[in-house]
Amino acid sequence: MSATSPQRVSLIGLGTIGMSMAALHLARDNTIVDVFDTRPDFEQYLSKTLPNFLAEPSSASGPSSSVASLISSGRLHIHSSLETACAFATIVQEQGPENLAFKQSIWKKVESLAPVSAHLWTSTSGIAASAQQQEMQDKTRLLVVHPFNPPHIMPLLEIVPAPGTSPERVEFAHEYFSLPGSRHRPVVIRKEVPGFVGNRLAFALLREACHLVQEDVVTANDLDTILMASLGPRWAGNGVFESYQQGGGEGGIRAFLDKLGSTMQEVWDGLGKVNVLGEQGTEWKEKVIQQTDDAYGTLTLEQVREKEARLRDFIRAQTQSYGQ
Amino acid sequence: MSATSPQRVSLIGLGTIGMSMAALHLARDNTIVDVFDTRPDFEQYLSKTLPNFLAEPSSASGPSSSVASLISSGRLHIHSSLETACAFATIVQEQGPENLAFKQSIWKKVESLAPVSAHLWTSTSGIAASAQQQEMQDKTRLLVVHPFNPPHIMPLLEIVPAPGTSPERVEFAHEYFSLPGSRHRPVVIRKEVPGFVGNRLAFALLREACHLVQEDVVTANDLDTILMASLGPRWAGNGVFESYQQGGGEGGIRAFLDKLGSTMQEVWDGLGKVNVLGEQGTEWKEKVIQQTDDAYGTLTLEQVREKEARLRDFIRAQTQSYGQ
Repeated sequence: MSATSPQRVSLIGLGTIGMSMAALHLARDNTIVDVFDTRPDFEQYLSKTLPNFLAEPSSASGPSSSVASLISSGRLHIHSSLETACAFATIVQEQGPENLAFKQSIWKKVESLAPVSAHLWTSTSGIAASAQQQEMQDKTRLLVVHPFNPPHIMPLLEIVPAPGTSPERVEFAHEYFSLPGSRHRPVVIRKEVPGFVGNRLAFALLREACHLVQEDVVTANDLDTILMASLGPRWAGNGVFESYQQGGGEGGIRAFLDKLGSTMQEVWDGLGKVNVLGEQGTEWKEKVIQQTDDAYGTLTLEQVREKEARLRDFIRAQTQSYGQ
Repeated sequence: MSATSPQRVSLIGLGTIGMSMAALHLARDNTIVDVFDTRPDFEQYLSKTLPNFLAEPSSASGPSSSVASLISSGRLHIHSSLETACAFATIVQEQGPENLAFKQSIWKKVESLAPVSAHLWTSTSGIAASAQQQEMQDKTRLLVVHPFNPPHIMPLLEIVPAPGTSPERVEFAHEYFSLPGSRHRPVVIRKEVPGFVGNRLAFALLREACHLVQEDVVTANDLDTILMASLGPRWAGNGVFESYQQGGGEGGIRAFLDKLGSTMQEVWDGLGKVNVLGEQGTEWKEKVIQQTDDAYGTLTLEQVREKEARLRDFIRAQTQSYGQ
């Protein structure tokens, strides 16, 4: 079955990522969504929380944001058991705890409950599909679909198959998230590496950021200003390789590497080696946490909403065309 | 004299960064700009090139973009000697070759030619002020003002004093670039470190990006897509510390570090160690250059213009306010 056909998505685990993922799927007219979570007040919680994710602010009062109307129209089904949630799924997507034992156990159960044709996706940020599927009979079905927070707005989905995942299932996931009208941009990652690609890049930068704060080169707040005033907007418009291709002029990235090579190597040789676990190199933690708390405190719901509106504007501007 | 008073800026070296910097200064109504470059066809080159930087595309045909009108109104002066270019400067800013001997020699000359009150700024990306000023009598005047390309659009200016630079001169530079109406955001860096802060963060990410391409985890083009579809727009709206403060929910960045700590440490332990100079760890270069060339080729002037228009939109969106 093609990804363009109507789909029935069973979502397991409706925390913040799960709610946002539900909104992502419900934005497709021909997708039916089944939801299951073990929290006792699940139905109440969903009715209260899901509307925050459903519509863009401008249409927040429209009928699409009403959970009741989604239920009465048959587009959303709330379940109190995994059995009924999975029974008719064409896709089962899990956003449960980041815990290997939980993941292995849930996939073993899902395998016995969902149709054999159903695609199995895990939203993990850290546990590879090949580890999660250890208890499964069929090791061709499961793959990682790693979203970036919040998935109903952020375009990236990292699709990370296990070595044994069937290519057709990888292709299906890629096609599902690439449908016309979607602002989402799925990318297939070719090898299972810790942190996949997006978080590896983010954590590489974060490590140096923590080092620079620890060394008093810059405050956490000033470092954030630097990022927002340069690399953020640059990388919203160009990737890193494209940026340096452009930066090198006619000689492209080769000329850039020749010109900046000695500074670059000096920086690479001196990159900070802070750690987040263990006993050495963790002195930065309290300083960074303190400076971050001082700068930002706890964000209010209004601040989060405003940041989401701005994020939507950046993403809209990415695909805007400019006439001459 | 306060930075809000009229200033007379002498620009030495009018390559691409210098032209863009001239446009930055000319955007201030009360700044007079003197320009000097050693290329033989300088006046012709300036008349042809500067208009590309002067105005936003929408007003490109307006009178402000005419070099002739800037000259006739006394706001722009073209010089064929360093002596006359510096004679009345309140600020001397240099964008010459990235070469220590050149920098030391030019500052020694400028010190003898410019008024003793003039502020001395170098636009270097790699050579600290403390190294550049070795031949100078007065070691309190020089500081780095490191722009991001292109400076007439990109908001960041990294102000990096030498240990002996006077605090008043640091404050003046900060104030000059913070004037009302400017979209620029100067940040003072507290220690002279190679690459300053912005490029250290960029190069930390780039090193891992090159490693992931070398290891066939992802193509250069797909890596760029990942960056543009996640971290770029996120960091255009939030700094890295603010992002993780938000990502940690009520517990802030402390909760985030607790929750993601084990994946983060695993990523940090396994970060790529490619090199750009030397004999080891440079195998990635040809692969990255080839994939980047294949993906992007050489950008046309129209493509560069469109990217600049998009960059302006991102930067405008950063300061937009959202009513409730």
